[in-house]
Amino acid sequence: MCQLLAMNCNVPTDIVFSFTGFAHRGGRTDTHHDGWGIAFFEGAGVRHFVDHQAAIASPIAELIKQYPIKSLNVIAHIRKATQGQVALENCHPFVRELWGRYWVFAHNGDLKDFNPTLDGPFRPVGNTDSERAFCFLLQQLRERFGDQPPAMPALRAAIRDLVHVIARHGTFNMMLSDGTALFAHCSTKLCYVVRKHPFDKASLADEDLSVDFSQVTTPDDRVAIIVTTPLTTNETWTEFAPGELKVFVDGLPQPE
Amino acid sequence: MCQLLAMNCNVPTDIVFSFTGFAHRGGRTDTHHDGWGIAFFEGAGVRHFVDHQAAIASPIAELIKQYPIKSLNVIAHIRKATQGQVALENCHPFVRELWGRYWVFAHNGDLKDFNPTLDGPFRPVGNTDSERAFCFLLQQLRERFGDQPPAMPALRAAIRDLVHVIARHGTFNMMLSDGTALFAHCSTKLCYVVRKHPFDKASLADEDLSVDFSQVTTPDDRVAIIVTTPLTTNETWTEFAPGELKVFVDGLPQPE
Repeated sequence: MCQLLAMNCNVPTDIVFSFTGFAHRGGRTDTHHDGWGIAFFEGAGVRHFVDHQAAIASPIAELIKQYPIKSLNVIAHIRKATQGQVALENCHPFVRELWGRYWVFAHNGDLKDFNPTLDGPFRPVGNTDSERAFCFLLQQLRERFGDQPPAMPALRAAIRDLVHVIARHGTFNMMLSDGTALFAHCSTKLCYVVRKHPFDKASLADEDLSVDFSQVTTPDDRVAIIVTTPLTTNETWTEFAPGELKVFVDGLPQPE
Repeated sequence: MCQLLAMNCNVPTDIVFSFTGFAHRGGRTDTHHDGWGIAFFEGAGVRHFVDHQAAIASPIAELIKQYPIKSLNVIAHIRKATQGQVALENCHPFVRELWGRYWVFAHNGDLKDFNPTLDGPFRPVGNTDSERAFCFLLQQLRERFGDQPPAMPALRAAIRDLVHVIARHGTFNMMLSDGTALFAHCSTKLCYVVRKHPFDKASLADEDLSVDFSQVTTPDDRVAIIVTTPLTTNETWTEFAPGELKVFVDGLPQPE
């Protein structure tokens, strides 16, 4: 199984603290050493970093830990290969364009016998179940809504339908973002925390490191962190229910 | 005008030496400071780095100069904005998927009144003439050949037709690669050199740096470097003719 991390905020925020703990799971505090990746939305653009080296050995991961890229939506992934060999084209997150927006996707889990007909414009480059699921999702969204994106309620309902179709084939914890919202689906394991005023000190579970967020934030900042297992030891993380899809906008889970 | 750099090789090669000289044009030896980017094919996968900071001020450019990523096909770009604001989504190279392969594209020049109907699955995310040209190219290739890529002669002929259509609108020096070949089109300014056995010493034009390639290569290595203006002072660069499309495979320009 892989590990997922995502961030959704109301003001551009760097992910250095959370990524530092998360990256340790890529070969040090956990066994996920078959590559890693991270994608940051910056306006409509995306910075996309993937590496098939273990996150703890990667010069690019080192850069990310030191370079505070500020973003409203970030998705990161550390891979333990279940399907598809260790190769760059199989590293998450994947990035594709639909409706003139980039979409970023990462998956944790294992899908059995998931071979949808991909006869539209989204074809896998690598050979993972995950990239097939992403192509299927985008193909279906384009088929349902045509050339224009729908309003959020219809988009959310469609994504919920589609992730449930995919999840019939196995474990499908996933993160998806178009830069305006973050969609997180839990099959088995996902939790989140919303950091907001009054900010407090947080201590990483995977490294001896703390940060006092009150020193680096303003009272209006709001940051949701969604992750496979809690990153910190002294914050209250909320578990997703199995089968649950949450949508985060401006650092908050949206009501149904 | 922007600056382009590409590399096509017969064995995976790092671009550290050539990129070091090229990156100096991003704000030091030239005025191209509106962002930069580079994409490396690694197998079927792509490493894609873009930054809207000047290349000489970018921590990511610094990483690239120190981290010898080995690749058969690389495309890099330093931007001086002519159309579209300075923003990440307007930084070249652009990456899209067609026929289950990633395609990488960068453009130097300025297209006037180029507003093709983009009603297929490739829509611009930013607002540059360049990204419109890339979307047009991919849409046309998909329309002509359907779901499967054609053999090289047909692909080359189609790309030649399409770049000539685009070049009617202005200057269109461009680099395009699907990871197996590098297509380079010259409107006004492009040159190349093929480095092969017996390798010699090369000295950068933009920085006081030399490398003796005979020390870092094997006799079978072959590397084509294609660039807006020569990178070195002591190699023989061949200029493209205006309107010329060259295709490089395994470090060699291919005969017609």
